[in-house]
Amino acid sequence: MTTIRLKVPQWQGGNKPNYFFGSQLLSWLAPENPEQKEFEVPIPEYNGPLQKENGVVGLTRVAATIDLVTEIITKEAPDKIITLGGDCLVSQAPFDYLKGKYGEELGVIWIDSHPDISTPEIYHHAHAMVLGNLFGHGDPFLSKKVENPFSVDSVLFVGLQEPTKDEKRVMQELALNYQVQNEVRISPKDIKQWVAERNFSKLVVHFDLDVLDPNTFRSLYFTEPGVKEFPSESGKMSLMEVEETMKAISEASDIVGLTIAEYLPWDAANLKKLMNSFNIFF
Amino acid sequence: MTTIRLKVPQWQGGNKPNYFFGSQLLSWLAPENPEQKEFEVPIPEYNGPLQKENGVVGLTRVAATIDLVTEIITKEAPDKIITLGGDCLVSQAPFDYLKGKYGEELGVIWIDSHPDISTPEIYHHAHAMVLGNLFGHGDPFLSKKVENPFSVDSVLFVGLQEPTKDEKRVMQELALNYQVQNEVRISPKDIKQWVAERNFSKLVVHFDLDVLDPNTFRSLYFTEPGVKEFPSESGKMSLMEVEETMKAISEASDIVGLTIAEYLPWDAANLKKLMNSFNIFF
Repeated sequence: MTTIRLKVPQWQGGNKPNYFFGSQLLSWLAPENPEQKEFEVPIPEYNGPLQKENGVVGLTRVAATIDLVTEIITKEAPDKIITLGGDCLVSQAPFDYLKGKYGEELGVIWIDSHPDISTPEIYHHAHAMVLGNLFGHGDPFLSKKVENPFSVDSVLFVGLQEPTKDEKRVMQELALNYQVQNEVRISPKDIKQWVAERNFSKLVVHFDLDVLDPNTFRSLYFTEPGVKEFPSESGKMSLMEVEETMKAISEASDIVGLTIAEYLPWDAANLKKLMNSFNIFF
Repeated sequence: MTTIRLKVPQWQGGNKPNYFFGSQLLSWLAPENPEQKEFEVPIPEYNGPLQKENGVVGLTRVAATIDLVTEIITKEAPDKIITLGGDCLVSQAPFDYLKGKYGEELGVIWIDSHPDISTPEIYHHAHAMVLGNLFGHGDPFLSKKVENPFSVDSVLFVGLQEPTKDEKRVMQELALNYQVQNEVRISPKDIKQWVAERNFSKLVVHFDLDVLDPNTFRSLYFTEPGVKEFPSESGKMSLMEVEETMKAISEASDIVGLTIAEYLPWDAANLKKLMNSFNIFF
């Protein structure tokens, strides 16, 4: 049983250069395990604004990342993959590979405040299209790279907030079921029942950190210092709820893929930058 | 010219176990420089509540840290010292050594929202006593370890907030001048003038991160998730103001000692803990 780690500092899918540093720190924070080889996917750091291509910012660039990740995975042929983002799009290649490996046995838990089923018609950042791509929908160019699409009924959303009107329309077109998680939580029991009913013996889990409540976890898109307004819904889950959710998932079935994405450690990045201005270090 | 780095994950001086992790992360964030050897001071992690001894929490333990740091410095005999805390008390041994080395040439810039001149009569955490100790005041047991006390007129406060009534009384006893930094800022020009008037050819700088505004830097005592009330004044400086301040200091004179203290990266610590609960990493 081989598990590999992919460090994917892709920031272009959300057009936020700070995702790059987030990936470095996430990798440093992850539990040490010499048996899990880590592969760092070479992603260029910010060197000027990205262009929209067919309605998607940095399309060629994020497509290239998918190819780079696929190359590593194909060569290593692991049984399990941990992916440390970077923006949410980093799930595409690993989940596609795992679907190819495990087929109908494989379910998806999408822990995220957003459904990630956007298309270039309604939004211009590729990280909001990743689950759509995995359905063979989303962005036409990126979804063509998916060799093993998931069916819409193999996905359970946890922590989802109210989708936008456009997203709801897409979800209806896809016949994608979802439950918004507000006062009523998707409980550990709900998760176990959902998995049992579908007989999934393997699961992939996409954990977008923005599912967390920005009042208690401030390393998110929604907590950028000095920014007051954000165009989308922030999350409401506590760290404890995510821990309980993950525990329920691993009790319900075998997790063969985990992505942790969208980490934006503003303070650490700012402190690093500040220290870089202090002469005494050089 | 030798510069060493001291990583001092002491948390006992503020009785906050998270300072330990803060020191590890601070060391990881610091600019790489193979010419600056880093020494990690062995500090026990939290393993149960500390006791008050003669009115000071963990007194024996923090006194032991001072001895351990002194031992390293004495052996290495550096020209400059960068100290990465840990709580504020970590400045004591390095500043004492540098005062011994540079004597009357050496001034102190204390970038902090608090004056750190407490005594066991008015407060029970040693990190609030460090500058007092360096004056030969503060805590009687800890200050006895100071071999080269500073004079009160060799210190300039930057970013200081309104001291408590008790602190003001101590400052009056010490004949310690200070200017609270509220609307009126201690400007780069003020700093240069202060240094020039006193002819300091060397400076040590104590930078307590809690001088920063907790609204834009959330890795502080004042931003603990879920905690709403704090018994002391938070800082008001921006990262840019600290950068300008440090630039002015290094233009005014030669910085031979720098401490960065009181880093509490809550999110990174919580995320690390959360990942440690995910089976797939093991």
